[in-house]
Amino acid sequence: MTEASPAPVSVIGLGLMGAALAGAYLKAGHQTTVWNRSAGKADALVAQGATNAEDISEAVAASDVLVVCVFDYAALYSILEPVKDSLRGKVIVNLTSGLPEDARGAAEWAQGVGAEYLDGYIMSVPPGVGQPQTLLFYAGDADVFAKHEATLKVLGGNSVHLGTDPGIAALYDLGLLTILWTSLAGALHAYALVGSEKVPAAALAPYAEAWITHVVLPSVKGAAAAVDSGQYATSVSTTALNAIGLGKLAEASKAAGIRPDLVLPIKEYLEKRVADGHGDEALAGMFEVIRSPE
Amino acid sequence: MTEASPAPVSVIGLGLMGAALAGAYLKAGHQTTVWNRSAGKADALVAQGATNAEDISEAVAASDVLVVCVFDYAALYSILEPVKDSLRGKVIVNLTSGLPEDARGAAEWAQGVGAEYLDGYIMSVPPGVGQPQTLLFYAGDADVFAKHEATLKVLGGNSVHLGTDPGIAALYDLGLLTILWTSLAGALHAYALVGSEKVPAAALAPYAEAWITHVVLPSVKGAAAAVDSGQYATSVSTTALNAIGLGKLAEASKAAGIRPDLVLPIKEYLEKRVADGHGDEALAGMFEVIRSPE
Ligand SMILES: NC(=O)c1ccc[n+]([C@@H]2O[C@H](COP(=O)([O-])OP(=O)(O)OC[C@H]3O[C@@H](n4cnc5c(N)ncnc54)[C@H](OP(=O)(O)O)[C@@H]3O)[C@@H](O)[C@H]2O)c1
Ligand SMILES: NC(=O)c1ccc[n+]([C@@H]2O[C@H](COP(=O)([O-])OP(=O)(O)OC[C@H]3O[C@@H](n4cnc5c(N)ncnc54)[C@H](OP(=O)(O)O)[C@@H]3O)[C@@H](O)[C@H]2O)c1
Repeated sequence: MTEASPAPVSVIGLGLMGAALAGAYLKAGHQTTVWNRSAGKADALVAQGATNAEDISEAVAASDVLVVCVFDYAALYSILEPVKDSLRGKVIVNLTSGLPEDARGAAEWAQGVGAEYLDGYIMSVPPGVGQPQTLLFYAGDADVFAKHEATLKVLGGNSVHLGTDPGIAALYDLGLLTILWTSLAGALHAYALVGSEKVPAAALAPYAEAWITHVVLPSVKGAAAAVDSGQYATSVSTTALNAIGLGKLAEASKAAGIRPDLVLPIKEYLEKRVADGHGDEALAGMFEVIRSPE
Repeated sequence: MTEASPAPVSVIGLGLMGAALAGAYLKAGHQTTVWNRSAGKADALVAQGATNAEDISEAVAASDVLVVCVFDYAALYSILEPVKDSLRGKVIVNLTSGLPEDARGAAEWAQGVGAEYLDGYIMSVPPGVGQPQTLLFYAGDADVFAKHEATLKVLGGNSVHLGTDPGIAALYDLGLLTILWTSLAGALHAYALVGSEKVPAAALAPYAEAWITHVVLPSVKGAAAAVDSGQYATSVSTTALNAIGLGKLAEASKAAGIRPDLVLPIKEYLEKRVADGHGDEALAGMFEVIRSPE
């Protein structure tokens, strides 16, 4: 069963992200009630037609669908605990970031108060909210997801239900954030390297873009097949050769006064692979070092 | 002035990469002479029409353009020093990986023996050699590059002259390799995370692909503008929030038995930014920590 007309939605938490969520619901014609701990953040939304709830009870009463997006789980509980007796039959769509265990705990808590629970992750920055291609991960009851799919897709056309384990969306989110953080830190390290010889980052950036598209992306995809099969044979580029390259990168970074911290662990992973007799295998073999500590 | 018909080329070093280079010249109709330290590696190329030089002197004598691609600079000198008196007027196209200072040293050495010198980097694995979109970086004398451009472009249609400083191609190469190594290590870390909950890497990979294209790439490009201007204001995602995320990632990694080594420096960089009063600025601000050690 899907909804016939736009369902009323209450958006709880109006930070950078929560405000974007409420804005998307207003734009899509949903009756939108908003609430935020501190005052003032609702003003722009009220001007666009939102109802500013006097207190959290009013926000809960106004809609069956409660979209919660606050700083962390402690904030979530501090908001919802006081009104837990009014949550029976409500759908809590929790878009607050946390770990898989946080999400599982919240799902259990929601069950305890008689509410449905979906755990979601917005794989975008606030300006991406409401776009057709924007990806959101969801986890939890498949029927609840199906029933509210139209409402959920207002926030991003590419809203995906990953599974019934409420922790699974948090796990995928953590994986993608890992890729963002490491790639961006690596790019900043690269900008520092060229910058040490007075080359602006903007000179490297177009090459970095082509490189990420044509070399990094295929490597990341290819590595998935390699780690799933445990097959690390290569006829293109060996761990031994790359280990030497990492050593040079570490030296060059130090010589240029750049912190080598980010590249040292990768050097160590590759050197361990070489020491373990896998020097002629592909780079992706460092997976075996990453996943198994001493 | 550019060449009229395919120029004879000698390819020195027939490892994974050198063999691909020679193959591309054969395919493009160049008279191709090959040489490798140990025997046997020329056989397949000879079958395709290459001439196997009896010794390095023969390889040097056969062509004005000498493409050298060996393990490292020590190998390069051990090959060319014995024949240095026959290098006058030759063009040494050195595609051996090294640091900017290695390239500068080799350019000086080449000048000392009366040879022209171009320092090049193949930004691809061997199967990409000879493709129209394949990127090669070159550094050194602009006239030498212009004169031999057609011969150089046989190895990759996107062959770019970056500047006359012979070290500049090595610098760009180091920057792009940094991005590859950090991104790939990050993706492998992500695969280990989802793998710890029995999710195959192949399940995350399609999302990683979309994520890299739609989120990582714009972040890397945006960061270039930020570091060049020193402006780190953000209205989308703050360093403080991401620092907390990194802390969670480190904890979750440890809890899953995954080495946190790769993510710990990023956590530290962000925490330093927060401690220095930049918690409300963009992630790219960690550039300031990376480039300036204590
Ligand atoms: N920004 C992004 O790019 C992005 C992307 C994906 C996911 N997210 C996630 O979305 C969530 C919100 O992020 P944001 O960017 O909107 O952060 P933000 O701008 O810092 O907003 C934080 C929100 O949490 C509220 N809050 C904090 N502590 C609270 C407490 N103890 N009780 C009640 N409310 C409390 C704040 O209320 P006050 O106004 O009263 O302080 C504010 O509404 C986070 O979990 C974040 O990881 C953000
Ligand atoms: N493979 C890639 O994906 C790739 C990509 C970009 C750049 N590169 C660069 O290309 C260069 C060659 O890489 P590769 O993949 O072809 O490596 P490789 O397969 O290991 O081949 C190394 C080559 O160097 C020769 N060599 C090593 N030490 C020598 C010495 N002391 N004297 C004479 N010859 C010596 C080897 O000769 P023997 O056969 O006698 O051992 C062989 O021809 C490296 O600098 C590498 O960084 C490689």
